[in-house]
Amino acid sequence: MRLATVSTPTGTTAAVQDGEDWRALPARDLSAAFADGSWAAAPGAVVPGAVPVLPLPRPGKVVCCGLNYGEHIRETGRELPAHPTLFAKFADTLTGPTDDLRLDASAQWDWEAELAVVVGTPLHRADRAAARAAIGGWTVANDLSARDWQRRTLQWFQGKAWDATTPLGPVVVTPDEVDPFAGLAVSCRIDGVEVQRDSTATLVFDAADLLAYVSTFTVLRPGDLVLTGTPGGVGMARDPQRWLADGEVLETEVEGIGTLRNTIRLTQEESSWTPATTA
Amino acid sequence: MRLATVSTPTGTTAAVQDGEDWRALPARDLSAAFADGSWAAAPGAVVPGAVPVLPLPRPGKVVCCGLNYGEHIRETGRELPAHPTLFAKFADTLTGPTDDLRLDASAQWDWEAELAVVVGTPLHRADRAAARAAIGGWTVANDLSARDWQRRTLQWFQGKAWDATTPLGPVVVTPDEVDPFAGLAVSCRIDGVEVQRDSTATLVFDAADLLAYVSTFTVLRPGDLVLTGTPGGVGMARDPQRWLADGEVLETEVEGIGTLRNTIRLTQEESSWTPATTA
Repeated sequence: MRLATVSTPTGTTAAVQDGEDWRALPARDLSAAFADGSWAAAPGAVVPGAVPVLPLPRPGKVVCCGLNYGEHIRETGRELPAHPTLFAKFADTLTGPTDDLRLDASAQWDWEAELAVVVGTPLHRADRAAARAAIGGWTVANDLSARDWQRRTLQWFQGKAWDATTPLGPVVVTPDEVDPFAGLAVSCRIDGVEVQRDSTATLVFDAADLLAYVSTFTVLRPGDLVLTGTPGGVGMARDPQRWLADGEVLETEVEGIGTLRNTIRLTQEESSWTPATTA
Repeated sequence: MRLATVSTPTGTTAAVQDGEDWRALPARDLSAAFADGSWAAAPGAVVPGAVPVLPLPRPGKVVCCGLNYGEHIRETGRELPAHPTLFAKFADTLTGPTDDLRLDASAQWDWEAELAVVVGTPLHRADRAAARAAIGGWTVANDLSARDWQRRTLQWFQGKAWDATTPLGPVVVTPDEVDPFAGLAVSCRIDGVEVQRDSTATLVFDAADLLAYVSTFTVLRPGDLVLTGTPGGVGMARDPQRWLADGEVLETEVEGIGTLRNTIRLTQEESSWTPATTA
């Protein structure tokens, strides 16, 4: 199944794709549908003019893995890791698959195309097999990062938790339809020029590893998200370094799932507002 | 006012202290009371046998600051920072002021006594003055950390986001009653022996700095939490290093606010369950 949260004249609804159409599911969005199981309900009427929006507006947890593709690890000058590098985002960090990305306060906004996992059933201290069985679906994310803020301190969080900067979607595809374990192409394009491409088969820690590992210390619930990390090709690692510019169109694709298409709206608001510098 | 979430025979209620008594407020807990403003409502009847439990069970965001007292920064061998070091916890990471702390999977559980700030009004891109005015209250936290997990990778998150390991409470004190900006003693004791003591007046980034800084990249809402960092004296920095042991009683106090009193229940469950090692 290909699931989405779609806009309607009266709000949003969870929906399942039927050919060219979207049929309503009995939940206002996929966060609700994963929470109550209604993502698997019988599809209702076709939703006229349905447009996929942010599929999961209220995940309880968003856990991200860094340094998880060999090529990206090498471009940052590091060794292959023994454990996944993890950090968190907020639900507020997410935004829709075609939303403009309103960026400011940094001149070093960078892209990170990623495969994202949607948790389907509760998970606590799971092994790999249980973790894999708990995967509810797959989607696409771009972990945009303000590299200067990310490197201000040892902890990356403040460069990666800016409201409405991580596009997600456009659809959540159930595991019977795609198999990232076997390998799906993850790619990123800026104004049509490819800047990242790798296969999910080369992940150091795959989705089952990550869900099992995270479930060691915190319970994962239906609708929670785990972002699996980005391939090589980010702007920070280029020579010269390359940052996102106002008006550029950022496309983020995972083969067999879908494509995010977001326009960069970059402003430097220094005149009206100065980032807090408190030292 | 001294506010709490207290247990009753039929669940919990938000409450305000009246001498020796707790009087009910019209919300099931302080998360609800901060969300709808009912923390300021007229107090109702005395709650018989009221016992403070986790005051804020559902903060939307929990942001923590590391390396924020000069003495603790020096004991980790670092320089005074230009920017606050930030990371996130989940609501699930929190636990009540007298709850046992069930720890496992690490033999390096360490303590971090902290002053915590409760956001009172929505905050976005605030300056220091607006941030200070948005403080809804003050409480006490202990940012227990599994040091081996914290140091497995560059990101501390996986050592600091274990479910039910950060005690919080016992009360939330409104800003008219205590003034951490002027200096309150933060202390930590293990079985009655003091291991940490410093004054909130020596914070590198005070609560107004932190709320303003965080509000640069993400909106803060009523009931959100910001933990301000821990003084020197953690077990990791001792010679020899010193970790929490089964049966020890951990007391965490901020002068004028209150004391957390939690018993360590440490097990090494390796026989029944092995932490995921996925490399």
